[in-house]
Amino acid sequence: MRIAVVAPSCTLSREAAERAGALVRERGDCELFVHPQCFLADGHFAGSDEQRLAALREVMADESLDAIWFARGGYGSNRIAEAAARDLPAAAHTKLYIGYSDAGFLHAAFHQAGLEVAWGPMPQDAMRGGGEAAIARALDWIVARDPSALEPDLQPPAMAFNLTVLATLLGTVLEPDLSGVDLLIEDVNEHHYRIDRTMFHVTASANVRRVARLRLGRVGDIPSNDPDFGRDEEAIVREWCERSNIAFGGRADIGHDAHNRVVPFQREISGFSL
Amino acid sequence: MRIAVVAPSCTLSREAAERAGALVRERGDCELFVHPQCFLADGHFAGSDEQRLAALREVMADESLDAIWFARGGYGSNRIAEAAARDLPAAAHTKLYIGYSDAGFLHAAFHQAGLEVAWGPMPQDAMRGGGEAAIARALDWIVARDPSALEPDLQPPAMAFNLTVLATLLGTVLEPDLSGVDLLIEDVNEHHYRIDRTMFHVTASANVRRVARLRLGRVGDIPSNDPDFGRDEEAIVREWCERSNIAFGGRADIGHDAHNRVVPFQREISGFSL
Repeated sequence: MRIAVVAPSCTLSREAAERAGALVRERGDCELFVHPQCFLADGHFAGSDEQRLAALREVMADESLDAIWFARGGYGSNRIAEAAARDLPAAAHTKLYIGYSDAGFLHAAFHQAGLEVAWGPMPQDAMRGGGEAAIARALDWIVARDPSALEPDLQPPAMAFNLTVLATLLGTVLEPDLSGVDLLIEDVNEHHYRIDRTMFHVTASANVRRVARLRLGRVGDIPSNDPDFGRDEEAIVREWCERSNIAFGGRADIGHDAHNRVVPFQREISGFSL
Repeated sequence: MRIAVVAPSCTLSREAAERAGALVRERGDCELFVHPQCFLADGHFAGSDEQRLAALREVMADESLDAIWFARGGYGSNRIAEAAARDLPAAAHTKLYIGYSDAGFLHAAFHQAGLEVAWGPMPQDAMRGGGEAAIARALDWIVARDPSALEPDLQPPAMAFNLTVLATLLGTVLEPDLSGVDLLIEDVNEHHYRIDRTMFHVTASANVRRVARLRLGRVGDIPSNDPDFGRDEEAIVREWCERSNIAFGGRADIGHDAHNRVVPFQREISGFSL
Protein backbone atom coordinates (compact mmCIF):
# COMPACT_ATOMS: atom_id res chain seq x y z
CA MET A 1 0.00 0.00 0.00
CA ARG A 2 1.70 3.17 -1.26
CA ILE A 3 0.45 6.53 -0.01
CA ALA A 4 1.46 9.96 -1.36
CA VAL A 5 1.12 13.16 0.66
CA VAL A 6 0.56 16.45 -1.20
CA ALA A 7 -0.53 19.84 0.13
CA PRO A 8 -3.20 21.54 -2.01
CA SER A 9 -3.75 24.23 0.67
CA CYS A 10 -1.09 25.29 3.20
CA THR A 11 2.47 24.21 3.95
CA LEU A 12 3.04 21.03 5.97
CA SER A 13 5.46 21.31 8.88
CA ARG A 14 8.61 19.18 8.69
CA GLU A 15 7.93 17.95 12.20
CA ALA A 16 4.43 16.75 11.32
CA ALA A 17 5.78 14.95 8.25
CA GLU A 18 8.45 13.26 10.39
CA ARG A 19 5.98 12.20 13.05
CA ALA A 20 3.52 10.82 10.49
CA GLY A 21 6.41 9.04 8.73
CA ALA A 22 7.55 7.46 11.99
CA LEU A 23 4.03 6.20 12.72
CA VAL A 24 3.85 4.68 9.24
CA ARG A 25 7.21 2.92 9.71
CA GLU A 26 6.07 1.49 13.06
CA ARG A 27 3.02 -0.06 11.39
CA GLY A 28 4.97 -1.62 8.55
CA ASP A 29 1.88 -2.18 6.40
CA CYS A 30 2.29 0.79 4.06
CA GLU A 31 4.79 3.28 2.62
CA LEU A 32 4.53 7.05 2.77
CA PHE A 33 5.85 9.37 0.05
CA VAL A 34 5.79 12.99 1.15
CA HIS A 35 5.94 15.10 -2.01
CA PRO A 36 8.48 17.94 -1.67
CA GLN A 37 5.72 20.35 -2.73
CA CYS A 38 4.32 19.95 0.79
CA PHE A 39 7.12 22.14 2.12
CA LEU A 40 6.92 24.94 -0.44
CA ALA A 41 5.65 28.33 0.67
CA ASP A 42 4.18 31.07 -1.49
CA GLY A 43 2.52 33.57 0.84
CA HIS A 44 -0.40 31.75 2.45
CA PHE A 45 -0.05 28.65 0.29
CA ALA A 46 2.17 25.58 -0.06
CA GLY A 47 3.52 26.91 -3.33
CA SER A 48 1.79 28.72 -6.17
CA ASP A 49 -1.47 27.46 -7.65
CA GLU A 50 0.57 25.99 -10.51
CA GLN A 51 2.93 24.18 -8.14
CA ARG A 52 0.17 22.78 -5.96
CA LEU A 53 -1.86 21.68 -8.97
CA ALA A 54 1.15 20.09 -10.68
CA ALA A 55 2.05 18.03 -7.59
CA LEU A 56 -1.54 16.91 -7.16
CA ARG A 57 -1.91 15.98 -10.83
CA GLU A 58 1.42 14.16 -10.69
CA VAL A 59 0.42 11.84 -7.86
CA MET A 60 -3.10 11.37 -9.28
CA ALA A 61 -1.56 10.03 -12.48
CA ASP A 62 0.93 7.74 -10.72
CA GLU A 63 -0.17 4.14 -11.17
CA SER A 64 2.07 2.93 -8.36
CA LEU A 65 0.11 4.86 -5.72
CA ASP A 66 -2.94 3.56 -3.86
CA ALA A 67 -3.93 6.68 -1.93
CA ILE A 68 -3.48 10.45 -1.90
CA TRP A 69 -3.41 11.86 1.61
CA PHE A 70 -3.94 15.61 1.84
CA ALA A 71 -1.26 17.01 4.14
CA ARG A 72 -3.35 19.59 5.96
CA GLY A 73 -6.11 22.17 5.61
CA GLY A 74 -5.91 25.90 6.02
CA TYR A 75 -7.08 27.49 2.81
CA GLY A 76 -6.45 27.19 -0.89
CA SER A 77 -7.62 23.94 -2.49
CA ASN A 78 -10.65 25.72 -3.99
CA ARG A 79 -8.25 27.65 -6.22
CA ILE A 80 -7.17 24.45 -8.03
CA ALA A 81 -10.06 22.01 -7.45
CA GLU A 82 -11.84 22.52 -10.77
CA ALA A 83 -8.60 22.12 -12.74
CA ALA A 84 -7.56 19.10 -10.67
CA ALA A 85 -10.77 17.24 -11.57
CA ARG A 86 -10.49 17.92 -15.30
CA ASP A 87 -9.28 15.34 -17.89
CA LEU A 88 -8.56 12.71 -15.28
CA PRO A 89 -5.87 10.14 -16.02
CA ALA A 90 -6.99 6.50 -15.65
CA ALA A 91 -4.79 6.05 -12.58
CA ALA A 92 -6.75 8.76 -10.75
CA HIS A 93 -9.72 6.37 -10.60
CA THR A 94 -7.89 3.59 -8.76
CA LYS A 95 -6.97 5.40 -5.58
CA LEU A 96 -8.45 6.88 -2.43
CA TYR A 97 -8.32 10.61 -1.62
CA ILE A 98 -8.51 11.45 2.07
CA GLY A 99 -8.41 14.59 4.23
CA TYR A 100 -10.78 17.14 5.75
CA SER A 101 -11.42 20.84 6.34
CA ASP A 102 -10.24 22.85 3.32
CA ALA A 103 -9.79 19.57 1.40
CA GLY A 104 -13.60 19.56 1.13
CA PHE A 105 -13.32 21.56 -2.09
CA LEU A 106 -11.37 18.65 -3.60
CA HIS A 107 -13.70 16.08 -2.07
CA ALA A 108 -16.64 17.77 -3.76
CA ALA A 109 -14.93 18.01 -7.14
CA PHE A 110 -13.48 14.49 -7.03
CA HIS A 111 -16.66 12.83 -5.78
CA GLN A 112 -18.53 14.42 -8.69
CA ALA A 113 -15.86 13.00 -10.99
CA GLY A 114 -16.47 9.49 -9.64
CA LEU A 115 -13.31 9.20 -7.53
CA GLU A 116 -13.23 7.55 -4.09
CA VAL A 117 -12.98 10.25 -1.43
CA ALA A 118 -13.18 10.18 2.33
CA TRP A 119 -13.23 12.73 5.13
CA GLY A 120 -10.58 11.79 7.67
CA PRO A 121 -7.49 12.83 9.68
CA MET A 122 -4.45 14.29 7.93
CA PRO A 123 -0.66 14.15 8.49
CA GLN A 124 -0.63 17.58 10.20
CA ASP A 125 -2.85 16.02 12.91
CA ALA A 126 0.30 14.24 14.15
CA MET A 127 1.05 17.53 15.96
CA ARG A 128 -2.16 17.39 18.05
CA GLY A 129 -2.34 15.93 21.52
CA GLY A 130 -3.51 12.36 20.88
CA GLY A 131 -2.66 12.83 17.23
CA GLU A 132 -1.18 9.32 16.96
CA ALA A 133 -4.68 7.89 17.25
CA ALA A 134 -5.93 10.21 14.52
CA ILE A 135 -3.09 9.18 12.21
CA ALA A 136 -3.73 5.49 13.00
CA ARG A 137 -7.43 5.92 12.23
CA ALA A 138 -6.74 7.44 8.82
CA LEU A 139 -4.20 4.73 8.00
CA ASP A 140 -6.55 1.97 9.19
CA TRP A 141 -9.02 3.23 6.62
CA ILE A 142 -6.47 3.81 3.86
CA VAL A 143 -4.73 0.43 4.28
CA ALA A 144 -7.59 -1.87 5.26
CA ARG A 145 -10.89 0.07 4.96
CA ASP A 146 -11.22 -0.87 8.64
CA PRO A 147 -14.82 -0.10 9.71
CA SER A 148 -13.63 0.82 13.22
CA ALA A 149 -12.26 4.06 11.73
CA LEU A 150 -15.71 5.14 10.56
CA GLU A 151 -17.99 7.71 12.08
CA PRO A 152 -20.21 5.30 14.01
CA ASP A 153 -23.69 6.39 12.92
CA LEU A 154 -23.39 6.80 9.15
CA GLN A 155 -26.40 6.14 6.94
CA PRO A 156 -24.80 6.00 3.48
CA PRO A 157 -24.56 7.81 1.20
CA ALA A 158 -22.84 10.19 3.57
CA MET A 159 -20.74 13.32 3.12
CA ALA A 160 -18.85 15.44 5.61
CA PHE A 161 -17.85 19.07 5.17
CA ASN A 162 -16.50 21.93 7.14
CA LEU A 163 -19.54 24.23 7.33
CA THR A 164 -17.71 27.27 5.98
CA VAL A 165 -16.23 25.24 3.13
CA LEU A 166 -19.69 23.87 2.29
CA ALA A 167 -21.14 27.40 2.28
CA THR A 168 -18.32 28.55 0.01
CA LEU A 169 -18.71 25.81 -2.57
CA LEU A 170 -22.50 26.14 -2.92
CA GLY A 171 -23.30 27.78 -6.25
CA THR A 172 -19.88 26.96 -7.70
CA VAL A 173 -19.02 24.20 -10.18
CA LEU A 174 -17.79 22.17 -7.20
CA GLU A 175 -21.25 21.81 -5.62
CA PRO A 176 -22.15 18.12 -5.28
CA ASP A 177 -25.63 16.61 -5.45
CA LEU A 178 -26.73 16.31 -1.83
CA SER A 179 -30.02 14.49 -2.47
CA GLY A 180 -30.64 11.83 0.14
CA VAL A 181 -27.23 12.35 1.74
CA ASP A 182 -26.41 11.92 5.45
CA LEU A 183 -24.69 15.32 5.67
CA LEU A 184 -22.20 15.86 8.50
CA ILE A 185 -20.87 19.35 9.22
CA GLU A 186 -18.34 20.76 11.67
CA ASP A 187 -16.39 23.97 12.01
CA VAL A 188 -13.55 25.63 13.85
CA ASN A 189 -12.66 29.15 14.90
CA GLU A 190 -15.97 30.76 13.92
CA HIS A 191 -18.03 33.00 16.19
CA HIS A 192 -21.56 31.89 17.01
CA TYR A 193 -22.93 34.79 14.96
CA ARG A 194 -20.93 33.58 11.98
CA ILE A 195 -22.23 30.04 12.41
CA ASP A 196 -25.77 31.42 12.49
CA ARG A 197 -25.13 33.53 9.36
CA THR A 198 -23.55 30.60 7.51
CA MET A 199 -26.42 28.27 8.45
CA PHE A 200 -28.87 30.86 7.05
CA HIS A 201 -26.97 30.71 3.76
CA VAL A 202 -26.51 26.94 3.63
CA THR A 203 -30.07 26.00 4.57
CA ALA A 204 -31.49 28.36 1.93
CA SER A 205 -30.06 26.04 -0.74
CA ALA A 206 -32.62 23.78 -2.45
CA ASN A 207 -29.85 21.20 -2.84
CA VAL A 208 -29.06 21.20 0.89
CA ARG A 209 -32.78 20.90 1.63
CA ARG A 210 -32.76 17.55 -0.18
CA VAL A 211 -30.38 15.87 2.30
CA ALA A 212 -31.69 12.85 4.20
CA ARG A 213 -30.57 14.49 7.43
CA LEU A 214 -28.03 16.99 8.70
CA ARG A 215 -25.77 16.16 11.64
CA LEU A 216 -23.50 18.43 13.62
CA GLY A 217 -19.94 17.46 14.48
CA ARG A 218 -17.84 19.43 16.91
CA VAL A 219 -17.33 23.16 16.54
CA GLY A 220 -13.93 23.94 18.02
CA ASP A 221 -12.21 27.10 19.28
CA ILE A 222 -15.28 29.33 19.05
CA PRO A 223 -14.09 32.92 19.67
CA SER A 224 -16.06 34.64 22.42
CA ASN A 225 -19.08 36.61 21.28
CA ASP A 226 -19.56 40.00 22.94
CA PRO A 227 -22.29 40.01 24.15
CA ASP A 228 -22.85 36.27 24.59
CA PHE A 229 -24.74 35.02 21.53
CA GLY A 230 -27.50 33.53 23.66
CA ARG A 231 -27.53 30.09 22.00
CA ASP A 232 -24.94 27.40 21.41
CA GLU A 233 -24.03 25.88 18.06
CA GLU A 234 -26.42 22.96 18.41
CA ALA A 235 -29.37 25.28 19.07
CA ILE A 236 -28.33 27.37 16.06
CA VAL A 237 -28.13 24.39 13.72
CA ARG A 238 -31.39 22.94 15.07
CA GLU A 239 -33.19 26.21 14.46
CA TRP A 240 -32.07 26.59 10.85
CA CYS A 241 -32.95 22.94 10.17
CA GLU A 242 -36.44 23.58 11.54
CA ARG A 243 -36.85 26.79 9.55
CA SER A 244 -35.88 25.01 6.32
CA ASN A 245 -37.60 21.69 6.97
CA ILE A 246 -34.36 19.70 7.10
CA ALA A 247 -34.25 16.69 9.44
CA PHE A 248 -31.68 17.36 12.18
CA GLY A 249 -29.98 14.04 12.92
CA GLY A 250 -28.17 14.99 16.12
CA ARG A 251 -24.44 15.08 16.76
CA ALA A 252 -21.67 13.50 14.67
CA ASP A 253 -18.24 12.27 15.73
CA ILE A 254 -16.14 14.54 13.50
CA GLY A 255 -14.27 17.77 14.11
CA HIS A 256 -10.94 19.59 14.05
CA ASP A 257 -9.50 17.33 16.75
CA ALA A 258 -7.76 14.02 17.39
CA HIS A 259 -11.11 12.21 17.66
CA ASN A 260 -12.14 13.11 14.11
CA ARG A 261 -13.41 9.98 12.34
CA VAL A 262 -13.66 8.79 8.75
CA VAL A 263 -16.62 9.51 6.45
CA PRO A 264 -16.43 7.86 3.00
CA PHE A 265 -18.55 9.62 0.37
CA GLN A 266 -19.22 6.50 -1.70
CA ARG A 267 -21.93 4.07 -0.76
CA GLU A 268 -19.96 1.03 -1.88
CA ILE A 269 -16.37 0.75 -0.67
CA SER A 270 -14.05 -1.84 -2.21
CA GLY A 271 -16.84 -4.28 -2.87
CA PHE A 272 -18.56 -4.14 0.51
CA SER A 273 -21.56 -2.03 1.34
CA LEU A 274 -21.25 0.26 4.33
CA MET B 1 -38.72 65.49 7.51
CA ARG B 2 -39.36 62.81 10.13
CA ILE B 3 -36.82 60.01 10.54
CA ALA B 4 -37.24 56.86 12.62
CA VAL B 5 -34.31 54.81 13.91
CA VAL B 6 -34.78 51.07 14.44
CA ALA B 7 -32.20 48.34 15.03
CA PRO B 8 -32.81 45.16 12.98
CA SER B 9 -29.39 43.76 13.96
CA CYS B 10 -27.54 44.70 17.17
CA THR B 11 -28.24 47.05 20.07
CA LEU B 12 -27.59 50.77 19.61
CA SER B 13 -25.58 52.47 22.34
CA ARG B 14 -27.34 55.22 24.30
CA GLU B 15 -24.37 57.46 23.73
CA ALA B 16 -24.51 57.04 19.94
CA ALA B 17 -28.24 57.78 19.99
CA GLU B 18 -27.63 60.93 22.02
CA ARG B 19 -24.83 62.13 19.76
CA ALA B 20 -26.86 61.51 16.61
CA GLY B 21 -29.85 63.23 18.24
CA ALA B 22 -27.74 66.28 19.13
CA LEU B 23 -26.46 66.55 15.55
CA VAL B 24 -30.03 66.40 14.26
CA ARG B 25 -31.14 69.14 16.66
CA GLU B 26 -28.26 71.37 15.57
CA ARG B 27 -29.35 71.08 11.92
CA GLY B 28 -32.97 71.88 12.66
CA ASP B 29 -34.19 70.52 9.30
CA CYS B 30 -35.47 67.15 10.51
CA GLU B 31 -36.73 65.24 13.55
CA LEU B 32 -35.33 61.97 14.85
CA PHE B 33 -37.44 59.31 16.56
CA VAL B 34 -35.28 56.63 18.13
CA HIS B 35 -37.50 53.58 18.63
CA PRO B 36 -37.04 52.07 22.13
CA GLN B 37 -36.44 48.71 20.44
CA CYS B 38 -32.96 50.04 19.55
CA PHE B 39 -31.89 49.58 23.18
CA LEU B 40 -33.27 46.07 23.73
CA ALA B 41 -30.82 43.22 24.10
CA ASP B 42 -31.49 39.51 23.55
CA GLY B 43 -28.11 37.78 23.41
CA HIS B 44 -26.38 39.07 20.29
CA PHE B 45 -29.40 40.97 19.04
CA ALA B 46 -31.35 44.18 19.73
CA GLY B 47 -34.28 42.14 21.00
CA SER B 48 -35.76 38.89 19.75
CA ASP B 49 -36.53 38.35 16.06
CA GLU B 50 -40.16 39.12 16.90
CA GLN B 51 -39.30 42.36 18.66
CA ARG B 52 -36.97 43.57 15.92
CA LEU B 53 -39.44 42.66 13.19
CA ALA B 54 -42.36 44.30 15.02
CA ALA B 55 -40.48 47.59 15.48
CA LEU B 56 -39.41 47.60 11.84
CA ARG B 57 -42.90 46.81 10.58
CA GLU B 58 -44.34 49.47 12.88
CA VAL B 59 -42.20 52.28 11.46
CA MET B 60 -42.62 51.02 7.88
CA ALA B 61 -46.39 51.35 8.27
CA ASP B 62 -46.24 54.82 9.87
CA GLU B 63 -47.48 57.39 7.34
CA SER B 64 -45.96 60.27 9.30
CA LEU B 65 -42.40 59.05 8.71
CA ASP B 66 -40.22 59.94 5.71
CA ALA B 67 -37.23 57.75 6.36
CA ILE B 68 -36.13 54.65 8.28
CA TRP B 69 -32.54 54.86 9.44
CA PHE B 70 -30.99 51.56 10.51
CA ALA B 71 -29.25 52.13 13.83
CA ARG B 72 -26.18 49.99 13.25
CA GLY B 73 -24.88 46.77 11.74
CA GLY B 74 -23.41 43.79 13.51
CA TYR B 75 -25.45 40.77 12.58
CA GLY B 76 -29.07 39.73 12.50
CA SER B 77 -31.20 41.51 9.89
CA ASN B 78 -31.11 38.42 7.63
CA ARG B 79 -33.21 36.62 10.24
CA ILE B 80 -36.15 38.98 9.66
CA ALA B 81 -35.58 40.41 6.16
CA GLU B 82 -37.89 38.07 4.25
CA ALA B 83 -40.74 38.65 6.72
CA ALA B 84 -40.14 42.40 6.76
CA ALA B 85 -40.59 42.63 2.98
CA ARG B 86 -43.84 40.63 2.95
CA ASP B 87 -47.36 42.18 2.62
CA LEU B 88 -46.05 45.71 2.60
CA PRO B 89 -48.31 48.48 3.90
CA ALA B 90 -48.80 51.41 1.47
CA ALA B 91 -46.81 53.72 3.74
CA ALA B 92 -43.73 51.50 3.31
CA HIS B 93 -43.48 52.69 -0.29
CA THR B 94 -43.22 56.39 0.53
CA LYS B 95 -40.04 56.41 2.55
CA LEU B 96 -36.30 55.94 2.29
CA TYR B 97 -34.42 53.09 4.02
CA ILE B 98 -30.78 53.80 4.74
CA GLY B 99 -27.87 52.00 6.42
CA TYR B 100 -25.00 49.68 5.52
CA SER B 101 -23.10 46.54 6.52
CA ASP B 102 -25.54 43.96 7.94
CA ALA B 103 -28.44 46.16 6.74
CA GLY B 104 -27.58 44.86 3.26
CA PHE B 105 -29.93 41.93 3.83
CA LEU B 106 -32.79 44.43 4.20
CA HIS B 107 -31.54 46.53 1.29
CA ALA B 108 -31.67 43.45 -0.95
CA ALA B 109 -35.15 42.43 0.19
CA PHE B 110 -36.59 45.96 0.10
CA HIS B 111 -35.06 46.89 -3.25
CA GLN B 112 -36.63 43.76 -4.74
CA ALA B 113 -39.94 44.90 -3.24
CA GLY B 114 -39.66 48.27 -4.99
CA LEU B 115 -38.76 50.35 -1.94
CA GLU B 116 -36.20 53.18 -2.02
CA VAL B 117 -33.02 52.01 -0.30
CA ALA B 118 -29.57 53.52 0.04
CA TRP B 119 -26.23 52.43 1.45
CA GLY B 120 -25.01 55.11 3.85
CA PRO B 121 -23.75 55.99 7.35
CA MET B 122 -25.77 54.99 10.44
CA PRO B 123 -26.39 56.53 13.87
CA GLN B 124 -23.78 54.29 15.53
CA ASP B 125 -21.18 56.00 13.32
CA ALA B 126 -21.53 59.02 15.63
CA MET B 127 -19.09 57.17 17.91
CA ARG B 128 -16.32 57.12 15.29
CA GLY B 129 -13.58 59.72 15.03
CA GLY B 130 -14.95 62.15 12.45
CA GLY B 131 -18.34 60.54 12.85
CA GLU B 132 -20.13 63.91 12.75
CA ALA B 133 -19.29 64.18 9.05
CA ALA B 134 -20.67 60.68 8.44
CA ILE B 135 -23.91 61.53 10.24
CA ALA B 136 -24.17 64.82 8.31
CA ARG B 137 -23.66 62.97 5.02
CA ALA B 138 -26.45 60.51 5.75
CA LEU B 139 -28.79 63.32 6.83
CA ASP B 140 -27.92 65.43 3.78
CA TRP B 141 -29.11 62.54 1.67
CA ILE B 142 -32.17 61.73 3.77
CA VAL B 143 -33.36 65.34 4.05
CA ALA B 144 -32.37 66.81 0.70
CA ARG B 145 -31.06 63.99 -1.54
CA ASP B 146 -27.94 66.16 -1.66
CA PRO B 147 -25.69 64.83 -4.44
CA SER B 148 -22.57 65.80 -2.48
CA ALA B 149 -23.30 62.85 -0.16
CA LEU B 150 -23.01 60.37 -3.01
CA GLU B 151 -20.14 58.05 -3.81
CA PRO B 152 -18.54 60.20 -6.52
CA ASP B 153 -18.15 57.72 -9.36
CA LEU B 154 -21.53 55.94 -9.50
CA GLN B 155 -22.85 54.68 -12.81
CA PRO B 156 -26.48 53.91 -11.95
CA PRO B 157 -28.03 51.52 -11.35
CA ALA B 158 -25.64 50.97 -8.47
CA MET B 159 -25.66 48.76 -5.39
CA ALA B 160 -23.30 48.53 -2.45
CA PHE B 161 -22.85 45.55 -0.16
CA ASN B 162 -20.56 44.30 2.50
CA LEU B 163 -18.77 41.46 0.70
CA THR B 164 -19.57 38.88 3.37
CA VAL B 165 -23.22 39.94 3.46
CA LEU B 166 -23.40 39.68 -0.33
CA ALA B 167 -21.86 36.19 -0.22
CA THR B 168 -24.36 35.18 2.43
CA LEU B 169 -27.47 36.37 0.59
CA LEU B 170 -26.57 34.75 -2.75
CA GLY B 171 -28.82 31.74 -3.30
CA THR B 172 -31.38 32.95 -0.76
CA VAL B 173 -34.74 34.60 -1.47
CA LEU B 174 -33.05 37.93 -0.73
CA GLU B 175 -30.73 37.78 -3.77
CA PRO B 176 -31.33 40.82 -6.01
CA ASP B 177 -30.96 40.93 -9.78
CA LEU B 178 -27.45 42.31 -10.35
CA SER B 179 -27.65 42.58 -14.16
CA GLY B 180 -25.97 45.73 -15.37
CA VAL B 181 -25.34 46.99 -11.85
CA ASP B 182 -22.36 49.10 -10.72
CA LEU B 183 -21.59 46.82 -7.77
CA LEU B 184 -19.59 48.28 -4.87
CA ILE B 185 -18.22 45.99 -2.16
CA GLU B 186 -16.31 46.55 1.05
CA ASP B 187 -15.54 44.55 4.16
CA VAL B 188 -14.18 44.76 7.66
CA ASN B 189 -12.39 42.45 10.04
CA GLU B 190 -11.80 39.62 7.54
CA HIS B 191 -8.44 37.96 6.93
CA HIS B 192 -7.02 38.12 3.42
CA TYR B 193 -7.56 34.38 3.03
CA ARG B 194 -11.22 34.85 3.91
CA ILE B 195 -11.57 37.67 1.37
CA ASP B 196 -10.03 35.38 -1.24
CA ARG B 197 -12.36 32.53 -0.30
CA THR B 198 -15.42 34.78 -0.33
CA MET B 199 -14.48 36.27 -3.71
CA PHE B 200 -14.21 32.71 -5.08
CA HIS B 201 -17.78 32.10 -3.93
CA VAL B 202 -19.23 35.43 -5.05
CA THR B 203 -17.64 35.50 -8.51
CA ALA B 204 -18.87 31.96 -9.24
CA SER B 205 -22.42 33.33 -9.28
CA ALA B 206 -23.93 33.77 -12.77
CA ASN B 207 -25.91 36.70 -11.35
CA VAL B 208 -22.77 38.46 -10.08
CA ARG B 209 -21.11 37.84 -13.45
CA ARG B 210 -23.83 39.99 -15.04
CA VAL B 211 -22.80 43.19 -13.20
CA ALA B 212 -21.65 46.15 -15.32
CA ARG B 213 -18.55 46.38 -13.14
CA LEU B 214 -17.35 45.54 -9.65
CA ARG B 215 -15.62 48.17 -7.52
CA LEU B 216 -13.78 47.71 -4.24
CA GLY B 217 -14.34 50.02 -1.29
CA ARG B 218 -12.13 49.98 1.76
CA VAL B 219 -11.43 46.78 3.68
CA GLY B 220 -10.85 47.77 7.28
CA ASP B 221 -9.21 46.11 10.27
CA ILE B 222 -7.82 43.12 8.38
CA PRO B 223 -6.46 40.66 10.98
CA SER B 224 -2.88 39.66 10.31
CA ASN B 225 -2.42 36.56 8.21
CA ASP B 226 0.30 34.16 9.38
CA PRO B 227 2.19 33.78 7.10
CA ASP B 228 1.57 36.99 5.16
CA PHE B 229 -1.02 36.23 2.49
CA GLY B 230 1.22 37.51 -0.27
CA ARG B 231 -1.35 39.78 -1.95
CA ASP B 232 -3.48 42.67 -0.78
CA GLU B 233 -7.25 42.94 -1.07
CA GLU B 234 -7.16 44.83 -4.35
CA ALA B 235 -4.97 42.17 -5.98
CA ILE B 236 -7.34 39.50 -4.65
CA VAL B 237 -10.44 41.18 -6.03
CA ARG B 238 -8.74 41.94 -9.34
CA GLU B 239 -7.73 38.31 -9.75
CA TRP B 240 -11.20 36.89 -9.14
CA CYS B 241 -12.72 39.46 -11.49
CA GLU B 242 -10.26 38.38 -14.18
CA ARG B 243 -10.93 34.69 -13.55
CA SER B 244 -14.68 35.22 -13.88
CA ASN B 245 -14.64 37.79 -16.68
CA ILE B 246 -16.09 40.58 -14.52
CA ALA B 247 -14.97 44.15 -15.29
CA PHE B 248 -13.04 45.48 -12.29
CA GLY B 249 -13.91 49.17 -11.96
CA GLY B 250 -11.25 50.22 -9.46
CA ARG B 251 -11.72 51.56 -5.96
CA ALA B 252 -14.91 52.95 -4.42
CA ASP B 253 -15.36 55.52 -1.65
CA ILE B 254 -17.26 53.33 0.83
CA GLY B 255 -16.22 51.40 3.90
CA HIS B 256 -16.67 50.86 7.62
CA ASP B 257 -15.38 54.33 8.43
CA ALA B 258 -16.35 57.99 8.75
CA HIS B 259 -15.70 58.60 5.05
CA ASN B 260 -18.32 56.08 3.94
CA ARG B 261 -20.55 57.66 1.27
CA VAL B 262 -24.10 57.15 0.03
CA VAL B 263 -25.08 54.68 -2.70
CA PRO B 264 -28.76 54.75 -3.71
CA PHE B 265 -29.97 51.52 -5.31
CA GLN B 266 -32.63 53.16 -7.50
CA ARG B 267 -31.75 54.77 -10.78
CA GLU B 268 -34.34 57.54 -10.40
CA ILE B 269 -34.36 59.40 -7.10
CA SER B 270 -37.27 61.68 -6.27
CA GLY B 271 -37.78 62.66 -9.86
CA PHE B 272 -34.19 63.38 -10.85
CA SER B 273 -31.91 60.95 -12.60
CA LEU B 274 -28.57 60.30 -10.91
